[in-house]
Amino acid sequence: MDSLKRRILKDGLVIDKNILKVDSFLNHQVDLNLMYEIGTYFKNYFKEAKPTKIFTVESSGIAPASMTALQMGLPMVILKKETSKILSDNIYQTVIHSFTKSIDYNLTLSKKYITAKDRILIIDDFLAKGEAASGAIRLIESAGAEVSGIGIVIEKSFQPGRKLLESKGYRVYSLARISSLEQGCIKFCSDKNPSAK
Amino acid sequence: MDSLKRRILKDGLVIDKNILKVDSFLNHQVDLNLMYEIGTYFKNYFKEAKPTKIFTVESSGIAPASMTALQMGLPMVILKKETSKILSDNIYQTVIHSFTKSIDYNLTLSKKYITAKDRILIIDDFLAKGEAASGAIRLIESAGAEVSGIGIVIEKSFQPGRKLLESKGYRVYSLARISSLEQGCIKFCSDKNPSAK
Repeated sequence: MDSLKRRILKDGLVIDKNILKVDSFLNHQVDLNLMYEIGTYFKNYFKEAKPTKIFTVESSGIAPASMTALQMGLPMVILKKETSKILSDNIYQTVIHSFTKSIDYNLTLSKKYITAKDRILIIDDFLAKGEAASGAIRLIESAGAEVSGIGIVIEKSFQPGRKLLESKGYRVYSLARISSLEQGCIKFCSDKNPSAK
Repeated sequence: MDSLKRRILKDGLVIDKNILKVDSFLNHQVDLNLMYEIGTYFKNYFKEAKPTKIFTVESSGIAPASMTALQMGLPMVILKKETSKILSDNIYQTVIHSFTKSIDYNLTLSKKYITAKDRILIIDDFLAKGEAASGAIRLIESAGAEVSGIGIVIEKSFQPGRKLLESKGYRVYSLARISSLEQGCIKFCSDKNPSAK
């Protein structure tokens, strides 16, 4: 997605070789026209997979997932990051680790909002080691539902998330794939070679 | 907003006389068509106030604020709830208390995303005691910017939030104003008497 890549080059801040900050248009201040365009890309790519719901992880995935759900006419479910375990028969929970915040969360889903017939499209802002996506997958599969795809706004292709998800057979589609943040430079994977690392 | 009130009556769960759960369309699963309609209402009401940015508090306000920002063509800023204080000259912080979770947060805003010339429209999902809105106002006014209005999806009018905000001169517009949750029943304030409690 060229407009996204241009925006990353214009406004992204390389903090170190592992961290890209996009606080000015995605994670703190949010550009809704860009989010809408992102939603159009996800819709076009995933419509054939016929998802029944869109799942995202609070809170930076909510804006792009909202715009995708709006355009696909689907409900969105926000997986909550609870800091403590909730004892209840009515929810699914799984522990995920946030490397950014060095903290474990109990990713939480009410059983009311998923059935074994659901086909879930996961949308998230970043893919790095795949912690959040893997947690979402565990919750979805606990319910006997199917993962119909994973849509990512920015993928750090030099981290193992995509490889991990693809090795388990999941379909990952990322709108911007960053191959390196070395020496303060942002390098993208070529679109013409989508499996390039 | 009649469609919202009908939805609250159909799907809202009265937990006790202070707590209404709307997890099926606003706080956990989200109905984006309804959020878009909510955005249209906020746009129509606040367009004359000519806001320059929309602020919301993570994370349940993000979906309705996104749809408002999209339709008004404005950037949205998500105020972050940090659990620890961040020592930095680049941010504004203020403590707010979550009565739902019985926890204090450091509501956080990067100085980069506000200037003294900004006119900020605050959008949030609920108004109860006014903690989150008051915190947002403190951050906005720390920057010398102006609060151009406060748009709320669901107001619990039997709690003191509106009175507190109006007493300080802020303009509050709520799409559904609940006057009571006593005895498991949801009672709305009349639209014809907008100052009714």
